[in-house]
Amino acid sequence: MEFSKRVLISECEQHIGKEVILKGWVKKIRQLGKVGFLLLRDRTGTVQCVLEQEQNQLKIETESVVRVTGVLVKTDKTANGVELQVNELIVLAEADPLPFEINKKKVNAGLDHLLNHRVLSLRHEQINAIFTVQSMFVKGFAEFLTKEGFTRIFTPKIVSQGAEGGANVFTFNYFDKNAYLAQSPQFYKQMMVGAGFERVFEIAPVYRAEEHNSSRHLNEYTSLDVEMGFIENVEEVMEMEKQVLQYTFDYVKEHCQKQLDILKVEIPVINDIPQMTLAEAQQLLKKKYQKDSPEGDLNTEGEKCIGNYIKEKYGSDFVFITNYPRTTRPMYTMPNKENPVLTDSFDLLYKGSEITSGGQRIHRQAELIASFKEKGLNPDEFKAYIDSFAYAIPPHGGFGIGLERIIMKFLNLGNIREASAFPRDCDRIIP
Amino acid sequence: MEFSKRVLISECEQHIGKEVILKGWVKKIRQLGKVGFLLLRDRTGTVQCVLEQEQNQLKIETESVVRVTGVLVKTDKTANGVELQVNELIVLAEADPLPFEINKKKVNAGLDHLLNHRVLSLRHEQINAIFTVQSMFVKGFAEFLTKEGFTRIFTPKIVSQGAEGGANVFTFNYFDKNAYLAQSPQFYKQMMVGAGFERVFEIAPVYRAEEHNSSRHLNEYTSLDVEMGFIENVEEVMEMEKQVLQYTFDYVKEHCQKQLDILKVEIPVINDIPQMTLAEAQQLLKKKYQKDSPEGDLNTEGEKCIGNYIKEKYGSDFVFITNYPRTTRPMYTMPNKENPVLTDSFDLLYKGSEITSGGQRIHRQAELIASFKEKGLNPDEFKAYIDSFAYAIPPHGGFGIGLERIIMKFLNLGNIREASAFPRDCDRIIP
Repeated sequence: MEFSKRVLISECEQHIGKEVILKGWVKKIRQLGKVGFLLLRDRTGTVQCVLEQEQNQLKIETESVVRVTGVLVKTDKTANGVELQVNELIVLAEADPLPFEINKKKVNAGLDHLLNHRVLSLRHEQINAIFTVQSMFVKGFAEFLTKEGFTRIFTPKIVSQGAEGGANVFTFNYFDKNAYLAQSPQFYKQMMVGAGFERVFEIAPVYRAEEHNSSRHLNEYTSLDVEMGFIENVEEVMEMEKQVLQYTFDYVKEHCQKQLDILKVEIPVINDIPQMTLAEAQQLLKKKYQKDSPEGDLNTEGEKCIGNYIKEKYGSDFVFITNYPRTTRPMYTMPNKENPVLTDSFDLLYKGSEITSGGQRIHRQAELIASFKEKGLNPDEFKAYIDSFAYAIPPHGGFGIGLERIIMKFLNLGNIREASAFPRDCDRIIP
Repeated sequence: MEFSKRVLISECEQHIGKEVILKGWVKKIRQLGKVGFLLLRDRTGTVQCVLEQEQNQLKIETESVVRVTGVLVKTDKTANGVELQVNELIVLAEADPLPFEINKKKVNAGLDHLLNHRVLSLRHEQINAIFTVQSMFVKGFAEFLTKEGFTRIFTPKIVSQGAEGGANVFTFNYFDKNAYLAQSPQFYKQMMVGAGFERVFEIAPVYRAEEHNSSRHLNEYTSLDVEMGFIENVEEVMEMEKQVLQYTFDYVKEHCQKQLDILKVEIPVINDIPQMTLAEAQQLLKKKYQKDSPEGDLNTEGEKCIGNYIKEKYGSDFVFITNYPRTTRPMYTMPNKENPVLTDSFDLLYKGSEITSGGQRIHRQAELIASFKEKGLNPDEFKAYIDSFAYAIPPHGGFGIGLERIIMKFLNLGNIREASAFPRDCDRIIP
């Protein structure tokens, strides 16, 4: 069955001399006396359409959706060397006058205004490009992991207990039971490793009921979660994260060069990622930058300084911070063998901002129960999770990457909301 | 850096004569007088390990996680022609005695019991295979759509209004606002079409607060959503659905033959999908089967009869039911031009069960507002959605497929819970 004979704008050069149907949005229209010029935009690009006679009489608002029929001719007046001599012009959907001018190099509107009119602002070339990159980033990520024997899993976001327990979870009534929105697929991805899949990943939303309104937090975000079994040590997990990022960065470069050019972003090759223990990082901050760190962690400012230091010293955008103490890591984190006050855990900083937490997990049930108790948690409240360790789960570890966070840093965006089509923060659930 | 030198069981034949490290679960163990046989399972298969001397003294529970070192030798006593002469056997994690025998052809336990002990039951070859197929099904689905110019999107599940409005939504408190869990990404995928992406898809959870406890409903499930702009008619949407299913079925056949064999499932080639209007289907049910249908819809029994009829008459597992009346379709559905009591909508039945709803959508704002009002809905409550149509959204349509539902039918499972790793129904949020 032959449907629409629509030609995409990127294909126009192959159809010179022929009559074609183009469809898209009116990016610009200039109607002079006898002749008009309509710049048509579809998802693949823009093309100039020349309007004469009755085609030039129609009054058309910018951003209206049109269907134009005409003959493609060669010209040296346009960038792509082609223009359409219009025979028929039909308005498929008319646009109202716009709340702000969208077809400029830079949009002159604040972020809130852009987010309020999201369908419009997303049409801007630079804003649109962000989400094409995001889409391909996820594809590259999934492709690499599949090649490496990982199974993509789908685990519930309705849970009976927040993974990390306690605060910062959204709660709701689920058929007369209390339920929570999952803060992470942590327990479930570990269980799927133990269920015989060994290597799993998930791409799904997670929820944090935190009342921060910062430029780098969202209350709902997409988590890229990875968990792998039969590891010898946490280094294997870090190596896997390095490799998946290398592949994904290269994948985006290969498939989104046009978008990266639009966004003026250059993606460097990822070489070896330097490592530093948390103690070393804190000491460096103290000595070189006269900065104190919070107990067992880095703060935003500290992350920035370490990021700069590593960039200068090693030319790397990335650095692994390792060996966080047990006090600041979750109860399922594997203690370090040599110094059990510490853990086999890591954060990954990218351009001076944390994008991952990861580590090896405790895989023996007795140790796990002891660790819960040490943290003051009641193992009975995590029964289903802990019970599954009775059937033998291999040594394993993993990590999670916040998609919007890494895209924000990847594309040098100023605010994480720019990396979310419809961001959710404390004030915003619309649109 | 060289980490674990673990060899996967599927690779054993390439290492005959060499000493290797294998890791996995103890599927079976028989310890005779002088010699023992341990059947080791990893994610790629099973291999026989021969234990002698002190290796044969260890008491090991079935399903324990072990690491074995030994020499791979040729043999004609095993199916894959190889066995491991064990030099070292280390238990990495010990299993408790099991609540049911997992290493039989058929597991002798009810579905509830299997779901309660999910980490264990998922290790059974037949159960495990379901989720490998699911993973690859999603990969094939995404791959086809990307090739066809679709952008993968991520839209919020925390929303200010359920897409279809009204009942059957989970509600919760979101920073002193009322919020809902999205029943579908319907509004957002339409908005992303209008935002210039034209063709989008999403793979994400959706939520239905329906109090049914049937064998084919879940309260949280994964929705495969597709929406495409610049269509001429709803036929294009149905054609796209046919093509994506063709590709995905072939993809699974190509990548999961081993799992399909384990599950004893044969996947037929999808040819043209027959179509039938709802009126025709209802008439057929009345005349041929003496069955009444609900106003403007089919019931479960009706779907089954139509499925059988189509299979017999056309040899097809699929049938599109078209032209549902406006009364039973959502307010955003495009009315039929020739008979505006009907809509340009469809359901897709697969093996006698609905797996898709789809259709063309209203794309002009004035018509959309009128349709909301006709349905007794207040357009002000859907302001952000309706407002976005002021900026001109092209003619468009799409569909959604319930992942667990299609996998259930695809693999001939008796209950949709079998197609969910951790199903959520009215009674179950654990594990």
